[in-house]
Amino acid sequence: MNYFIKQEKIRFQHIDYAGIVFYPRFLEMLNGLVEDWFEEALDRPFSKMHQTNGIPTVDLKVQFKKAARLGEILTKKLWVKELKSSSVICGFRFEDENGTTCLEGEVTLVNVKISEDRNSIKAEAFNEEMKQKISKFII
Amino acid sequence: MNYFIKQEKIRFQHIDYAGIVFYPRFLEMLNGLVEDWFEEALDRPFSKMHQTNGIPTVDLKVQFKKAARLGEILTKKLWVKELKSSSVICGFRFEDENGTTCLEGEVTLVNVKISEDRNSIKAEAFNEEMKQKISKFII
Amino acid sequence: MNYFIKQEKIRFQHIDYAGIVFYPRFLEMLNGLVEDWFEEALDRPFSKMHQTNGIPTVDLKVQFKKAARLGEILTKKLWVKELKSSSVICGFRFEDENGTTCLEGEVTLVNVKISEDRNSIKAEAFNEEMKQKISKFII
Amino acid sequence: MNYFIKQEKIRFQHIDYAGIVFYPRFLEMLNGLVEDWFEEALDRPFSKMHQTNGIPTVDLKVQFKKAARLGEILTKKLWVKELKSSSVICGFRFEDENGTTCLEGEVTLVNVKISEDRNSIKAEAFNEEMKQKISKFII
Repeated sequence: MNYFIKQEKIRFQHIDYAGIVFYPRFLEMLNGLVEDWFEEALDRPFSKMHQTNGIPTVDLKVQFKKAARLGEILTKKLWVKELKSSSVICGFRFEDENGTTCLEGEVTLVNVKISEDRNSIKAEAFNEEMKQKISKFII
Repeated sequence: MNYFIKQEKIRFQHIDYAGIVFYPRFLEMLNGLVEDWFEEALDRPFSKMHQTNGIPTVDLKVQFKKAARLGEILTKKLWVKELKSSSVICGFRFEDENGTTCLEGEVTLVNVKISEDRNSIKAEAFNEEMKQKISKFII
Repeated sequence: MNYFIKQEKIRFQHIDYAGIVFYPRFLEMLNGLVEDWFEEALDRPFSKMHQTNGIPTVDLKVQFKKAARLGEILTKKLWVKELKSSSVICGFRFEDENGTTCLEGEVTLVNVKISEDRNSIKAEAFNEEMKQKISKFII
Repeated sequence: MNYFIKQEKIRFQHIDYAGIVFYPRFLEMLNGLVEDWFEEALDRPFSKMHQTNGIPTVDLKVQFKKAARLGEILTKKLWVKELKSSSVICGFRFEDENGTTCLEGEVTLVNVKISEDRNSIKAEAFNEEMKQKISKFII
């Protein structure tokens, strides 16, 4: 019943000619939020998980509501909207220092197994331990 | 009544540890598709347009259906689903060499004016010429 | 007579198919180090500086000595090798958690003024205050 | 006795707040040039080569001489300065449409073998066929 929360500062490499974040960079920040959630809250650091598994994004919906500029510190929030057998739908929201929403949306992640030859990928059910840990973020 | 179509090859810089495209890179490819559409079909090359205006993305929905791998050549298609006063909703689909959809979705772009001090951004209606050119891609 | 030091964690977005940092990402990390140095040590945050000025890189030499992998925390060190009228030659070194050098090199930054129409860029001497602040990092 | 030559257009994703290419993007373009050279001239497409091998950059020297702006088409040239047993030193130069050099430098690439568990990397001599193909670009 809680949000997973991290902060990220807008850097020169994130912004475009208009001085605002180039939107694919926001999705790198979202990927970083999922990465931190797996490592810090779900005990599945990407450095171990990615040797045999993956957690690809299969669906993404984002509304970009307010531009973010160089030097701003955004608060990134993630929560769980629905936990299925081998996938999880997460909500997310990035807010500026006044609490105004810069972007929000939802992202569907699928738990996958990568074959030994690394050429095939297939969905795999979350185990009970993961389900319990993920469930703590259902809102 | 036609698609705007470009091709793009999957390069080393696009792929991740699993050997498949890291999804924020797909959105750079989508941005490149919009950029080519503006330059080649709408006569608004970004190099001129971005001196005074912009075309930020305010809404994005994507379904990632099939992983794309290093060396594949994707066909990127863009069309117009709805043209409003100062915004346009575009559909898009990226297909592999067999015609299988890798990703598809819709993106809403807003026509904006950037103030001379470059600190404020506000929506501006498309002019008639742009409306006519954009309309040719309504499907 | 001291280093400017920051840490950065290797993230999923930094690594390539071989599981090691894709080298252009190391240079984004280097740019981030210069950005932090300007903001934290030289009182010239990029968010203000870049409205009228810039600090482009004109020369770069790097030796990549050891691959860095997902999850590693690198220590990034920056110092000044030579301070000229409008440019500065910085040394840098990124070390892993055992103190082993992953990369090292030198980068030359030029202080520039950007014209009001943003179309021309020319070198400008550092003022005395900046010179003093930069000098503290000469090693 | 010839250059390997490709062209690349400066896109919105390459430029920074000053409207010029953010220099780590130039190094992605350099990596793309090496990638095309391997595929088109050396018959070692990255999509096959990277399953068992790699060609990491171990040394890089670049002088950035002229900014490049959105919409410019750069001509990227690569040649071989020295071919060693398991490494090759390449020269490179990116020129704008007037033939003015935007950047130039040299990059050292090492031929490596990646172990089956993908956790270790070691240098491996080029075979005779590769040596012959690479030699054609010695200038």
